Amino acid sequence: MGEDNKDKEGPVIRPIEWKNDRLCLLDQTLLPHEKKYVECYTYSDVARAIKDMIVRGAPAIGVSAAYGMVLGAAEYKGDDVEGFLKHVEAVAQVLRNTRPTAVNLFWAIERMLKVAFDNKHRSVGDIKDMLLKEADKMAQEDVETNRRIGYFGQQLLKDGDVVLTHCNAGALATVGYGTALGVIRAAHEAGKNISVYADETRPYLQGARLTAWELMEEGIPVTLITDSMAGYFMKKGVISAVIVGADRIAANGDVANKIGTYTLAVLAKENKVPFYVAAPVSTLDLSLDSGEDIPIEERDEREVTHIGGIRIAPHGVKVANPAFDVTPNEYVTAIITDRGIVYPPYKQNLEKLVNKNSK
Amino acid sequence: MGEDNKDKEGPVIRPIEWKNDRLCLLDQTLLPHEKKYVECYTYSDVARAIKDMIVRGAPAIGVSAAYGMVLGAAEYKGDDVEGFLKHVEAVAQVLRNTRPTAVNLFWAIERMLKVAFDNKHRSVGDIKDMLLKEADKMAQEDVETNRRIGYFGQQLLKDGDVVLTHCNAGALATVGYGTALGVIRAAHEAGKNISVYADETRPYLQGARLTAWELMEEGIPVTLITDSMAGYFMKKGVISAVIVGADRIAANGDVANKIGTYTLAVLAKENKVPFYVAAPVSTLDLSLDSGEDIPIEERDEREVTHIGGIRIAPHGVKVANPAFDVTPNEYVTAIITDRGIVYPPYKQNLEKLVNKNSK
Repeated sequence: MGEDNKDKEGPVIRPIEWKNDRLCLLDQTLLPHEKKYVECYTYSDVARAIKDMIVRGAPAIGVSAAYGMVLGAAEYKGDDVEGFLKHVEAVAQVLRNTRPTAVNLFWAIERMLKVAFDNKHRSVGDIKDMLLKEADKMAQEDVETNRRIGYFGQQLLKDGDVVLTHCNAGALATVGYGTALGVIRAAHEAGKNISVYADETRPYLQGARLTAWELMEEGIPVTLITDSMAGYFMKKGVISAVIVGADRIAANGDVANKIGTYTLAVLAKENKVPFYVAAPVSTLDLSLDSGEDIPIEERDEREVTHIGGIRIAPHGVKVANPAFDVTPNEYVTAIITDRGIVYPPYKQNLEKLVNKNSK
Repeated sequence: MGEDNKDKEGPVIRPIEWKNDRLCLLDQTLLPHEKKYVECYTYSDVARAIKDMIVRGAPAIGVSAAYGMVLGAAEYKGDDVEGFLKHVEAVAQVLRNTRPTAVNLFWAIERMLKVAFDNKHRSVGDIKDMLLKEADKMAQEDVETNRRIGYFGQQLLKDGDVVLTHCNAGALATVGYGTALGVIRAAHEAGKNISVYADETRPYLQGARLTAWELMEEGIPVTLITDSMAGYFMKKGVISAVIVGADRIAANGDVANKIGTYTLAVLAKENKVPFYVAAPVSTLDLSLDSGEDIPIEERDEREVTHIGGIRIAPHGVKVANPAFDVTPNEYVTAIITDRGIVYPPYKQNLEKLVNKNSK
């Protein structure tokens, strides 16, 4: 299953790299104009980078937080394991408080904490080493996971398909390869002629700045549109499928993703266009019965009133800026995961998927 | 019917003014930062102003073109009526070629041509005077028309309603008072507590730059959102009604309006929110059976790739920029005109409306 891809040189775009005891993050606030890495020396640097969206995208946030835990652990100078674990828990709390919606953040932090607490009989130095190994493993797994999502998902696409996507669920949102864009990449690598319509994705313009750039780098044909044009092209019959990523998926298949996703799902249903969500199993949150319980982050109003530092709206205008919305499961044609494609009824089939493979 | 409003000082915001033999247009590309008038001395100045969206909005374009005809007529220096009429027809053609979608442009030009041709037995000087009178009449009629739209439309709103609007169908899109915002103004003047959610309306940001500004000037509470947030707030139950303007309405009630309108209509239907279109009868184009025949303007890709002169998308990216979309009649709850509110079946009822009043 896509095994041959693994022999390739690896992803061209590397948003997250661990080098010389520091976390190097490709500064996504500067793309596509500038390709510059921000170096994080401390866990506070990582927390700030997540909050400020220097690194963004649910899987990328998860892996960055894991390395944030490594940096946080390194900052503990003693050799008292109990004190060390308390310190690590405090670091975890700071990282948890960066962004509330994407569950991969919490998943990654819990996984790191488990390594630390499961090994409390070892020395502080040993646990620090194990934490770094775990973070490295998560980074490596992420690319493999995305390749598996791509392998399964590309089977849903045929030669000549035109895919609409929103925000950036690409290499830049992960350690490499991407989820929604991973499916498109895999179809492209399988020799299918796929082209993409990319929503610019206001307010943060991840589509215009990141997705368009990423696909152009890869030579996959892309047309940039504003968010309000997606309906026009669906109604015209131009779009074969919508594929988006996810920040959190509830047990019933409700999907939290970048604001505007719900709108695309409604438009897709109305125009009989399949609506696919591509996400790793780590994005599932089976502890939540439905999407109604997913916390929605409200971000700074400057994202709406300003673009590129330039004010576009009147001074003093009231602004709302919810960063995500929830798409109810009835709009979702299928969820493409690294363990296969899941169809409705989601409650049943997502549970089956998780249990089957965790045995 | 709103007669008392006419005694007020008149609209605060005046996007179009005829002063000292020239057409003064409030430069809407500079709002909300700068309130500056562009002076048009020739019909070519007017054509450029329409094309460059210094003046925009279907009714405002119509009246501007009428004054463009006045300036064009004045440029004819001889007294040969036949030559004059040929010249006026050439001027009309230049003005027609500015923007293809809003029918009010063509309606206004035809009305001006009719005045010229119906009076070809008079002198060139007399016809020039009559053209100016006709343009002045159209400007005055426009505000009265909008007040009537407001009078009828406000009856659909109740105290406490939250109205979502798209683009700017306000005083700035007309000679004054506005169509969709005219309805909101009228409800506000009737003492109803109305608040507004304004879509920013990419790519040209008429919502962020013009609607937000216009409502704030008037003291009507407004919350600015990005286009992709409209669905979120409808699903949340925050929005009582959607009201938009129109650039052209076909005989069957299909509505061409700013790109993104179709999306709002689909979202409104899905969330059982009434979807109203407010437009003068001059926006009706009963010569077209359906909206499929309405030409959709494709504008410069810089509107998408740049904001405020700053590039946001990668160099060389392919862009689509349709400026309008067509909302099929089945999504339209009612059309609010200056002659009353029209409900489905539109084919029948729009025809009835036009015939009833033109007798």
